[in-house]
Amino acid sequence: MDQSKLQQHYSQQYNTELEEVRTAVLRMGGLVEQQLERALSALQHGDSSQGEVVVANDYQVNALDVDIDDRCTTIIARRQPTASDLRLVMTVIKTTADLERIGDEAKRVARMAIRLSASDHGRSLFLQLEHLGDQVREMLHGVLDAYARMDVDQAIKVAHQDKRVDAEYENVLRQAITYMMEDPRSIPLILDVIWSARALERIGDRCCNISEYVIYFVKGKDVRHTSLDQMEKEVNA
Amino acid sequence: MDQSKLQQHYSQQYNTELEEVRTAVLRMGGLVEQQLERALSALQHGDSSQGEVVVANDYQVNALDVDIDDRCTTIIARRQPTASDLRLVMTVIKTTADLERIGDEAKRVARMAIRLSASDHGRSLFLQLEHLGDQVREMLHGVLDAYARMDVDQAIKVAHQDKRVDAEYENVLRQAITYMMEDPRSIPLILDVIWSARALERIGDRCCNISEYVIYFVKGKDVRHTSLDQMEKEVNA
Repeated sequence: MDQSKLQQHYSQQYNTELEEVRTAVLRMGGLVEQQLERALSALQHGDSSQGEVVVANDYQVNALDVDIDDRCTTIIARRQPTASDLRLVMTVIKTTADLERIGDEAKRVARMAIRLSASDHGRSLFLQLEHLGDQVREMLHGVLDAYARMDVDQAIKVAHQDKRVDAEYENVLRQAITYMMEDPRSIPLILDVIWSARALERIGDRCCNISEYVIYFVKGKDVRHTSLDQMEKEVNA
Repeated sequence: MDQSKLQQHYSQQYNTELEEVRTAVLRMGGLVEQQLERALSALQHGDSSQGEVVVANDYQVNALDVDIDDRCTTIIARRQPTASDLRLVMTVIKTTADLERIGDEAKRVARMAIRLSASDHGRSLFLQLEHLGDQVREMLHGVLDAYARMDVDQAIKVAHQDKRVDAEYENVLRQAITYMMEDPRSIPLILDVIWSARALERIGDRCCNISEYVIYFVKGKDVRHTSLDQMEKEVNA
């Protein structure tokens, strides 16, 4: 091969590596979505076996986390990316870290589902939890979609959804407190409901983080720790 | 300047940049320690004004997070680090992210301290919380020390401390549940105690994360998602 062919070959391989880590995140995202889906289903149907599957599969999420991270470090070391290539690699590293933690939260929900499956108590609160779960699942799906298409408008939409998730979480919390005060024997069980709600609310926060990374990749601006208004301004700039 | 002098100058500047981000993390760590210290003091003395200082100062932690991250990306783009230089930069990026979240947890504790300062209820639980707070503060101090000296033995020590923190947290939780069942009117207040305990427990987890990054830097091995035994094996390898 002559020099230019070699160069072309080299750069094609580099592009393949970048594309591979980008899609590996989507695979990881799909797995995490499945974990959340299953944890919520375990909660809804009081099905502890589904909860156990989630707990057992968490190692797969962790393995992808380590693998993608390692591939990114190798790309940085060998390919010395700059500009948007570097932003992509940084976006991948950060998104992976948040997906891994969403996986942890899904595992927490699954553990609570296993404990709660033994009880008929507090079923009315479960309905509320389901509603919260649906919203969070939609956020996760939406932000993975935003990442797949590097779509900043979709990313902003997810950040907006988080406001509703926070309000819904506060709602569950208030009702849970009332429930506990009315029937103190239910406290240990209702605390598990509260932990599940909290885990779901945290998943919403992490989806927002991923939204911010998408905006960072597309716009080259770090919008973490800014308001939703400022985020929108950056996106429309 | 001749070529070799230029080269030397260039490499000195590079070393300075690396050293600067390394120490910026320590500055950020010092600030986060102060935030935690103050939040715990606010809790202990029922001093809401100290709690408010913590909430007001959180933006400084966030600003350091964005600044250090930005400097790391610039180093990667301009200096194209490899081997241990690259590991250092990756360690800095990840440590910063966890410190930022420790700052968030300290802010949560401070918010609870502000709410709890209005009440005399549940003071006996506060003592337990103080004990947990002391342990977590020690962990944070220890892990910053491990980072400063890139000391893997100290990092392992911190990981061990986390086991005790988790046990202490479970302890607080059990007592809080008993307290709530005995006096249901105290539920909203005791929930704030529980949130504070949870935030402290999470800080312990994040200290463990930083321990893992220190081991990654020194040993070149990613020990996340492994057991404490495996971590020790890697360190002694």
